[in-house]
Amino acid sequence: MRTRGILRILGLLICLFSATLLPPAVVALIYGDGGGTAFILAFAISLGIGFLVWYPQRNVRHDLKVRDGFLLTVLFWTVLGMVGVMPLYFAEELPLSFTDAVFESFSGLTTTGATVIQGIETLPHSLLFYRQQLQWLGGMGIIVLAVAILPMLGIGGMQLYRAEIPGPLKDAKMTPRIADTAKHLWYIYVALTAVCAIAYHLAGMSWFDAIGHAFSTIAVGGFSTYDASMGYFDSATINTICVVFLLLSSINFAVHYAAITGRSILPLLRDPETRAFLGIQATLIFIVFATVLVHDVYSDTGTAFNQALFQAVSISTTAGFATTDFASWPLFLPILLIFASFIGGCASSTAGGLKVVRVVLLFRQGVRELNRLVHPSGVYSVKLGQRILPQRVVEAVWGFFAAYALVFVVIMLGLLATGLEDITAFSATAAALNNLGPGLGEVAANYATIPDGAKWLLVLAMIFGRLEVFTLLVLLTPTFWRS
Amino acid sequence: MRTRGILRILGLLICLFSATLLPPAVVALIYGDGGGTAFILAFAISLGIGFLVWYPQRNVRHDLKVRDGFLLTVLFWTVLGMVGVMPLYFAEELPLSFTDAVFESFSGLTTTGATVIQGIETLPHSLLFYRQQLQWLGGMGIIVLAVAILPMLGIGGMQLYRAEIPGPLKDAKMTPRIADTAKHLWYIYVALTAVCAIAYHLAGMSWFDAIGHAFSTIAVGGFSTYDASMGYFDSATINTICVVFLLLSSINFAVHYAAITGRSILPLLRDPETRAFLGIQATLIFIVFATVLVHDVYSDTGTAFNQALFQAVSISTTAGFATTDFASWPLFLPILLIFASFIGGCASSTAGGLKVVRVVLLFRQGVRELNRLVHPSGVYSVKLGQRILPQRVVEAVWGFFAAYALVFVVIMLGLLATGLEDITAFSATAAALNNLGPGLGEVAANYATIPDGAKWLLVLAMIFGRLEVFTLLVLLTPTFWRS
Ligand SMILES: [K+]
Ligand SMILES: [K+]
Repeated sequence: MRTRGILRILGLLICLFSATLLPPAVVALIYGDGGGTAFILAFAISLGIGFLVWYPQRNVRHDLKVRDGFLLTVLFWTVLGMVGVMPLYFAEELPLSFTDAVFESFSGLTTTGATVIQGIETLPHSLLFYRQQLQWLGGMGIIVLAVAILPMLGIGGMQLYRAEIPGPLKDAKMTPRIADTAKHLWYIYVALTAVCAIAYHLAGMSWFDAIGHAFSTIAVGGFSTYDASMGYFDSATINTICVVFLLLSSINFAVHYAAITGRSILPLLRDPETRAFLGIQATLIFIVFATVLVHDVYSDTGTAFNQALFQAVSISTTAGFATTDFASWPLFLPILLIFASFIGGCASSTAGGLKVVRVVLLFRQGVRELNRLVHPSGVYSVKLGQRILPQRVVEAVWGFFAAYALVFVVIMLGLLATGLEDITAFSATAAALNNLGPGLGEVAANYATIPDGAKWLLVLAMIFGRLEVFTLLVLLTPTFWRS
Repeated sequence: MRTRGILRILGLLICLFSATLLPPAVVALIYGDGGGTAFILAFAISLGIGFLVWYPQRNVRHDLKVRDGFLLTVLFWTVLGMVGVMPLYFAEELPLSFTDAVFESFSGLTTTGATVIQGIETLPHSLLFYRQQLQWLGGMGIIVLAVAILPMLGIGGMQLYRAEIPGPLKDAKMTPRIADTAKHLWYIYVALTAVCAIAYHLAGMSWFDAIGHAFSTIAVGGFSTYDASMGYFDSATINTICVVFLLLSSINFAVHYAAITGRSILPLLRDPETRAFLGIQATLIFIVFATVLVHDVYSDTGTAFNQALFQAVSISTTAGFATTDFASWPLFLPILLIFASFIGGCASSTAGGLKVVRVVLLFRQGVRELNRLVHPSGVYSVKLGQRILPQRVVEAVWGFFAAYALVFVVIMLGLLATGLEDITAFSATAAALNNLGPGLGEVAANYATIPDGAKWLLVLAMIFGRLEVFTLLVLLTPTFWRS
């Protein structure tokens, strides 16, 4: 392990992250909400910590190895998550326990969007802005993770997206160097956020709300500045805007890049994962709409369609925005959508879940197994688009699926042991592991009332989900720590 | 498809099965309970049907191909399950709807052990005997399925147990011919049943109860002649006897055979699956005992241990016998044990679930993935005992796991759509798919009150579980039906 090299980068990251505590302080100044002190204090402390971590290693020039990448990635999310706790814990207007502050910070940064705060609209603007910004920064982190780190580490078959491997990415002439790639995808991320904010504003949101909700929409995060979430605006237009940008944010950003540089939507139409994703979304919207109609949940068909559209996309892409109390729909629908959140969005998007491409590969491999049973001596390959996948990738996806299932079962049993009810434990585990946000039962609106032990388990689940399980699991193996 | 060859065998099987309707008629005579007519009628009808199916094909001498094996296996269980419906539907003492009779018959034959009957002890002896015998015959069917059919078809990695493949089975000098193998394992099955019945009788059961419960114990079935199941006897000795025979019946019968022919228990101690199975059981018993103690569920430690032992083994081996109302224990325990029932017993035993060997392979493959992430260029193999497994077997196990998960989700969503509550739908799906029996919530005691649609879905789940998912799924592929 190149400890000093890792510390050098980590120190720099903390310094960089501390700068993100300044915009909320500016918001506090603008609105004169008196919430600035907590942010200035947190900024000073984190800058100090970052400097102290970086300074002794400033001359270290080790190249990090792949194995260091696991440790650095886990430290990146956990350390920045803990730095993010400070303003929440310091803020006098928000009397959060340490556990609650940790839960809120990690829920923000992992773009889970579960909250322990009741009465969100009473918070000062600076804190509201900070929560939304935390999700947005989390989304930027996810893009780097997805395009640079996971393919390099080879987590859960993501070596599929290694730029060196011939295939869709190379064909699309992606800039091969990782830093460049991330930068280009960030441009898209920022541009999508800007367009989304303008659209929200034109549809009636204040600029403050528009920017805040654009942050949490493009990050597929789900935080809102109101207890009632998107339902506060009670606007079919705003719901529809949200759906459009959630769908865009749940598509592989590298596919967007190919579409933009080629000035053509063909890359989106041709990408097998995007097609599968849109097919799944259309199916879910149809099922939800039909069920809501049959059960006469809404008095007019237009509202029923808008609510079905919004809720199906919001839950299944793992955004977790709410308009209606979807926990009170016929139980079949919330559970269907929570199961759909296990699929989630596309790889290299800001959405959570197993990712569509993995589910497609599991399905194709399942079909191959059936074909092999009928024709034991036949030779069948697993394809994605025109490309025959190496066996190694398919195996990694299987391993990912099983590890995901194992972590789900262990966390859910842990939650039951803390005394949570069945549906609460099930939905909370799914909501945290898939980085979805809201659950059912006791955690349908917020996570304020569950025991502290349950909250820590859920923070662990959020990190497992965001780091795609294996990044964290690897650190628990003896092999990893052996020189 | 060799339709005529399949029909010839099927006709013979129905004739053979019809003979099993005579012992309950004899029981009716002995106890003078007036229930004999239904059995004689059912016997005559099924013998007639069997003869009509067989007679036109009596001279057909096609050798069946592997592919015909899928269809024959599915027909074997579904047709015999439907024949088994007759006495239940005809019996005047038991006013069952057709749906309920189908549910009870399939639940018996698949050794699931879920019941729709309330007030079981009021039934005539002949019907009680019939239900227990149905499970015992189901268990015999499972042994043939496990040692002969699944390895030949290669379902879910079970080609592992093909006698031709070098390995533990061949080393143990298993009689290579399949029919012989099945016959030897049946001797063990019958002997275990006899010893179990004697033990139950010595512990205080009447001979009728002792034989009936030995039938459902060795089949890991879980049917009882009392509503209160084993709890009726309220005997720590009977509970312990049940546990011992459930553990024996959940071990691979081929391993028993090796132990008996070698007059040594070394094969049991050396078999990696048996070791893993006993380790899992010990862990579960410990967790349940400790939790029951902490929660002060019982006033004395001895009772607590006996109940913990019994309930842990009964649920996790997928027997599903009850003593105490385990649904009223701290919710963590029932759900832990239901999750454990997904593991179930060993391959080639009468227990249900995914089977221990598959879970061991999934775990080893998971460890291999972790090692590969740390050392991408390292060569790691998946081993079972001393044996390196072919990649093909590992892939088949993955496919099995994913298909099992998919069927689980689809059936559970279907149950929710019929209006079942969350915990009822979850536990009923697990209980049917794992061939476990009792669930939680509305189906904790019996399945009488759920809608007909839900009962049919659960019958489907039982068949999926018993036929290891793929046998049935294969029939749904176009490839299978193409010439
Ligand atoms: K989210
Ligand atoms: K059972």
